[in-house]
Amino acid sequence: MGVIVPLKDNKRQRRAGIEPLVEFTAASMGAVNEIILDRAGSDVGLIPEVARHLIDSGGKRLRPMLTIASAAMCGYEGAGHVKLAASVEFMHTATLLHDDVVDESDLRRGKLAARLVWGNQASVLVGDFLLGQAFKMMVEVGSLDCLEILSNAAAIIAEGEVMQLAAAKNTATTEDEYLAVIQAKTAALFSAAAEVGPTIADRDRSERAAFRSFGTNLGLAFQLIDDALDYGGNSAELGKKVGDDFREGKITLPVVLAYRRGSDADRTFWDRVIVEGTVEPEDLEAAVALMNRYGAIDDTIERARHFGDVARDALAPFPASAHQSALLEAVDFCIERAH
Amino acid sequence: MGVIVPLKDNKRQRRAGIEPLVEFTAASMGAVNEIILDRAGSDVGLIPEVARHLIDSGGKRLRPMLTIASAAMCGYEGAGHVKLAASVEFMHTATLLHDDVVDESDLRRGKLAARLVWGNQASVLVGDFLLGQAFKMMVEVGSLDCLEILSNAAAIIAEGEVMQLAAAKNTATTEDEYLAVIQAKTAALFSAAAEVGPTIADRDRSERAAFRSFGTNLGLAFQLIDDALDYGGNSAELGKKVGDDFREGKITLPVVLAYRRGSDADRTFWDRVIVEGTVEPEDLEAAVALMNRYGAIDDTIERARHFGDVARDALAPFPASAHQSALLEAVDFCIERAH
Repeated sequence: MGVIVPLKDNKRQRRAGIEPLVEFTAASMGAVNEIILDRAGSDVGLIPEVARHLIDSGGKRLRPMLTIASAAMCGYEGAGHVKLAASVEFMHTATLLHDDVVDESDLRRGKLAARLVWGNQASVLVGDFLLGQAFKMMVEVGSLDCLEILSNAAAIIAEGEVMQLAAAKNTATTEDEYLAVIQAKTAALFSAAAEVGPTIADRDRSERAAFRSFGTNLGLAFQLIDDALDYGGNSAELGKKVGDDFREGKITLPVVLAYRRGSDADRTFWDRVIVEGTVEPEDLEAAVALMNRYGAIDDTIERARHFGDVARDALAPFPASAHQSALLEAVDFCIERAH
Repeated sequence: MGVIVPLKDNKRQRRAGIEPLVEFTAASMGAVNEIILDRAGSDVGLIPEVARHLIDSGGKRLRPMLTIASAAMCGYEGAGHVKLAASVEFMHTATLLHDDVVDESDLRRGKLAARLVWGNQASVLVGDFLLGQAFKMMVEVGSLDCLEILSNAAAIIAEGEVMQLAAAKNTATTEDEYLAVIQAKTAALFSAAAEVGPTIADRDRSERAAFRSFGTNLGLAFQLIDDALDYGGNSAELGKKVGDDFREGKITLPVVLAYRRGSDADRTFWDRVIVEGTVEPEDLEAAVALMNRYGAIDDTIERARHFGDVARDALAPFPASAHQSALLEAVDFCIERAH
């Protein structure tokens, strides 16, 4: 199969920040995409259909790019990183399929969520199938260290989803509790995606720790900016409607901050829309107005900036290289999305 | 016993920030200090002697003030918070005694470290004695929830010390790894000190979580500012010589950042002074110059500010009160110490 899945970011539009990473990983990502298409195939027709629905809608492929770039930055010359990167993307896709079922989402990457097209059962099972394929590929690569990192992440992600379920509708969630959720739900996979690079390249403990830290903090920053964008981003840019989190009654950092900083009357509003879930059409605007009054969106971006700074320092000790600066610029890209 | 131990901060000098907390807790802190003097007593003459050496040198008593203020802010009207606060201070004092032995420190709060006056054995054993007294007092208070919080903290603190020992001399420590150390070593006790307040006052889960988060993040901010002060503070203000951490070859955030951001030549310097421990008199100045070149001290303060912001938001939902604003000002105080 020689088909290369078109990436959004290959459109050559001037996107400060992510372009260098896309360019440096383009060749390997071509191979990753071939594997993704190949391994999403099955004689059970429904499987490729559901999987392709998400795969073709082309996310940024940030996670597998992390794996490719970190392996390359560490001088890895084998081919194992390609399958590891594909595994990472499959783990991510599986999470999205399962998430949409749990969250009862309607849209994903600007398209109808798979669960609305094929139903919840298909979404759950195809997610499981992709997770199984991810593990098969990891085993094929044969690095026990990488298997440990990625299987550990898989367990943590699931734990994070359960944590989020338990914390759902709790408007009194503290920022620390919310950070623990996204640490597990989002940052753990970024962390693993980055750490398998130096690991497959046989780098020492401190270099693995540096990439792990880079991935973790990039993941936290990425998620917080996503949270902020859901209340202030542009629908076309986002690939999903602004206000999705709000309509789903999701607790994200802008809500946590606006709730904590608000008056009793404000909290009555939040409890109605989040806990009771009785959302009127004009409520989103009211929510954004409250967030802006208390600087909740700006400070969410500020918190993301903090984690971005930590991510940058994690990679600082490595000798300057094109890969390194591409990864550092990707941090800026993730944060500048918010503007 | 009616003696009240003089507190540094009772000197009525204008210290923006900490004064309100000192004033609001003054009456209860008088009782705490009586208990501290009483419970540090023993027929074994060496015990009160060693204990008083530290107790009389009067730290800021920030941790027991946290307990007193958080209990008061939650409307607690009993007397149990006084013994809990004394327990917290004993746990802290025990840690200091043990720390000085582990770190081979010469000075503590501007005085010779107890280990230099009475030897390592006495410091270790008096630390154990104080820890035992702390647990006795907690049991006397009789709140199983508070016992769980504080005994949990005691275990985490010890874990943090071991973690620090394992990470010692590792200049490649990542910021995340360092944060995990101070989370355990410092923030866990701040967190417990703050959480026992709402717990003894029988407040609900979300209020306990808010105080726990406040304490944790205040503790992180406090430790990072301490780290920064050790390279830029004023000796008289500090109560210990500037550069103590440096001479002990301690890895703190300013070192982590300067090391990661530095050139290969810089890292040779850090490896010599930290790993080999061959420190020349002029090295401290060179270390501070390197830190300033890479903004390592400024950014340590910036990171502290982030945690301070999170701490403030943790307490934001409570109705405005004098105790709340005193606690919020204490956050500013902890951070402004760096200037």
